[in-house]
Amino acid sequence: MTFKKRDLILFLVITFVIGFLGAYTGLKVLQPKLSKNEQIEIPFTKESTDNQLNENLQTIKEAYELIDHHYIGDIEDDQLLEGAIQGMLETLNDPYSSYMNAEAMKRFYEQIESSFQGIGAEVSMVEGKVTIVAPIKDSPAEKAGLRPNDQILKVDDESLDGLDLNEAVEKIRGEKGSEVVLLVQRKGSSQPFELTLVRDDIPIETVLTETETVDGKKTGIIDIRTFSETTSQEFEDALDTLEEEDIEGLVIDVRGNPGGLLDSIEDILQHFVPQDTPYLQIEDGQGKVDKYYTKLKEKKPYPISVIIDEGSASASEILAVAMKEIGYEVVGTTSFGKGTVQQAVPIGSNKDESTIKLTFFKWLSPEGNWINEVGVEPTVKQKQPEFFYASPIQTEDVLQFDQTDEQIENAQVMLTGIGYDTKRDDGYFDEQTEAAVKEFQQDHDLPVNGEIDEDTAYAIEMEVVEIIRDGKQDLQLEKALEVLYQ
Amino acid sequence: MTFKKRDLILFLVITFVIGFLGAYTGLKVLQPKLSKNEQIEIPFTKESTDNQLNENLQTIKEAYELIDHHYIGDIEDDQLLEGAIQGMLETLNDPYSSYMNAEAMKRFYEQIESSFQGIGAEVSMVEGKVTIVAPIKDSPAEKAGLRPNDQILKVDDESLDGLDLNEAVEKIRGEKGSEVVLLVQRKGSSQPFELTLVRDDIPIETVLTETETVDGKKTGIIDIRTFSETTSQEFEDALDTLEEEDIEGLVIDVRGNPGGLLDSIEDILQHFVPQDTPYLQIEDGQGKVDKYYTKLKEKKPYPISVIIDEGSASASEILAVAMKEIGYEVVGTTSFGKGTVQQAVPIGSNKDESTIKLTFFKWLSPEGNWINEVGVEPTVKQKQPEFFYASPIQTEDVLQFDQTDEQIENAQVMLTGIGYDTKRDDGYFDEQTEAAVKEFQQDHDLPVNGEIDEDTAYAIEMEVVEIIRDGKQDLQLEKALEVLYQ
Repeated sequence: MTFKKRDLILFLVITFVIGFLGAYTGLKVLQPKLSKNEQIEIPFTKESTDNQLNENLQTIKEAYELIDHHYIGDIEDDQLLEGAIQGMLETLNDPYSSYMNAEAMKRFYEQIESSFQGIGAEVSMVEGKVTIVAPIKDSPAEKAGLRPNDQILKVDDESLDGLDLNEAVEKIRGEKGSEVVLLVQRKGSSQPFELTLVRDDIPIETVLTETETVDGKKTGIIDIRTFSETTSQEFEDALDTLEEEDIEGLVIDVRGNPGGLLDSIEDILQHFVPQDTPYLQIEDGQGKVDKYYTKLKEKKPYPISVIIDEGSASASEILAVAMKEIGYEVVGTTSFGKGTVQQAVPIGSNKDESTIKLTFFKWLSPEGNWINEVGVEPTVKQKQPEFFYASPIQTEDVLQFDQTDEQIENAQVMLTGIGYDTKRDDGYFDEQTEAAVKEFQQDHDLPVNGEIDEDTAYAIEMEVVEIIRDGKQDLQLEKALEVLYQ
Repeated sequence: MTFKKRDLILFLVITFVIGFLGAYTGLKVLQPKLSKNEQIEIPFTKESTDNQLNENLQTIKEAYELIDHHYIGDIEDDQLLEGAIQGMLETLNDPYSSYMNAEAMKRFYEQIESSFQGIGAEVSMVEGKVTIVAPIKDSPAEKAGLRPNDQILKVDDESLDGLDLNEAVEKIRGEKGSEVVLLVQRKGSSQPFELTLVRDDIPIETVLTETETVDGKKTGIIDIRTFSETTSQEFEDALDTLEEEDIEGLVIDVRGNPGGLLDSIEDILQHFVPQDTPYLQIEDGQGKVDKYYTKLKEKKPYPISVIIDEGSASASEILAVAMKEIGYEVVGTTSFGKGTVQQAVPIGSNKDESTIKLTFFKWLSPEGNWINEVGVEPTVKQKQPEFFYASPIQTEDVLQFDQTDEQIENAQVMLTGIGYDTKRDDGYFDEQTEAAVKEFQQDHDLPVNGEIDEDTAYAIEMEVVEIIRDGKQDLQLEKALEVLYQ
């Protein structure tokens, strides 16, 4: 089973991918696909005839000049401009409408660019150490032999101590072709060792595929991690391959998928929603609603289910609700609830420098439902095992027999989840919990003292990460496979 | 000795004056007095020739129109206008530059207006009850017989329970000539009783005067509470009267005075700063400094001292620092530290509706010092007695022998301050503290149990308020009088 980044996000403090994704997903715009004659007319040059508007603009100008000419302090060139735009956007109380000035745009593009070049490994911060979660297939990280749970201590002889994950990732990333030397600590090795990697382009896979056999039926599983420019093509390729393999059922997994480009999800829905039902409706600021249709004659001949969770947002929800309303099962937990579409509009004299991202549209489900702030309800509710959601164990003090503590509760949930049954998870460290800890320590070559110190807590957490990654207890996927053939 | 409002503010949670002051002082602008040819030129109609500025204004216009035309939600008429102005002002990070829209201005004027009409009593919230601190001389409150410590339970049959002081004051205030019925609870009366008052104009005294004899020398004390439009005239009248009485020394008290109009303090300084020294310097945004001089030939023939505290701001500091730099003693604690001058500029097509208050100038002391964020250091440091600064006693639980509690500390400081020496103020309720409580209870007709319950705490606090009001332990004033004749 594929490693599930989203589950790790629930479990670990932060999970990052070096040379892959990064901040990109968070900032992408769900852009509407508009036909030529629907192209949005941005009134950049047109003089408004609206009196109120002209009066207001005149007043803003007065205020601008008053402040610019008379304020006692220094005023930077773009300070009032940016203040005015930020101020106008703030009145909307819309978390998705925002402004990026030239500098922010530059950083943003640099970040995207650098996120495609690097060593190719997913890392997270565990117990204050930058830790490899998984090297990406065929990446420099994999080729150099980096393994899950390796701790990176130094980068080019600079210690990562005290840096946060973002800062550490910045140091590890870099241009294609450049060398980076990592000092790596591996469990089991007594001494840290150095690895030299040559940074490279990192293949961006937004769609991951596998097959599983359920009751003798070959079933495809497509995991869409984000909706980027390449996603719909990747998805089509994956679907083609699976159909060539004669799958008898399909699971589409959009858990933890924050959305992305509207184009991308529109292309994907062409394969599933028949032409008699809109696959999507778009409502503009004036309340005008457009319905969008595919040219698809009929549904796929095989059953399909979709998996969502609370991290599935925007484009993921467009997919989930459309599939639900045309009769497919949707398994998991209620999705995030983002029902709006933003458009990034360059602004100012130098059009490619600053950008306003504005909420232009609502999107509605095929039946016209607006899921904003509500989310998509699954048809089949299924949570992951409790220990997937447990917080990391804080071990400032050693946890031991007869104590009562919230951290003990976390440990009990995790221990039980990974097969060391504590029989209780109320945070009281009783004899049974002590026995479970001892058994765990025995199995993991730790000093068998029945106390949860830093090493034991780390080992428990790593075991949980391992289980989440292996997907062995992925109840949502199990359920999604199960409902296919009922 | 005059009742000192500022001290009460330190002691009680809030102190308000019904039909007097109110929010007015807080919002007043320290306006520069400009000669005709220095009148600020506000470029309302002039077209700017600055390219950067025009470009920026064009970009703001684009953003305005983009949001106005395309945002999916409703946008109110003035929403973007106000957002833009607020946004520009926010970039200044200046707490004194602000914007008031038409509605805010209307509320502001109504508040000022209503603050001049009412029953004329200072009130505060004590133990959850609206309590009369002092009726103003010749006011409806005084004529009707309201007394200090009276609790107001109902206004026109509406209970004040659960209202905050602001809300309660709103109910009590009203137009001149209107009747209001108060249900009053007085200590010593078993039943609350009704009083009917006719609201009236309340005389606004911003300057209070008295005389005291020090070592046989008649000494004038002028207390300036704020610098309003009438203040300089009131001050001149007060000074004339005192000089006719042949005072041999003068104390000017600006403790707790938050400032006000620049005109006002300029007029007052004409009486004290001789013509050879500037009484004030004003620096504009371009760094140009103007020095302002009086026509005064020589200093007053009698010694003068000024009292300041941490609540003395703006115009009060202009006074204090000028007096200090021409050689007078300044007694008290370091002042607030506001060294800027704001100008209120009406803005928009309807010029009297919305206003930008902008920091136009720095003011500097006669010698050119800028006291902003630093304050004026007194030449003679003097704090008030410790119990003036004590917090009210919270008596959720009864405080008693052998307990240790921060509230007991407050009580010990107060008891000792009002003459019941607890010998310690570390918050431990020992036998000596119990004895002091018993003695206090004996003297105040309370059950003599040595415990601080709600009634005892209230009585202690009232006694403290009484002492602060009577000025019997006003160490700062004592010191200011003392330094005059040294």
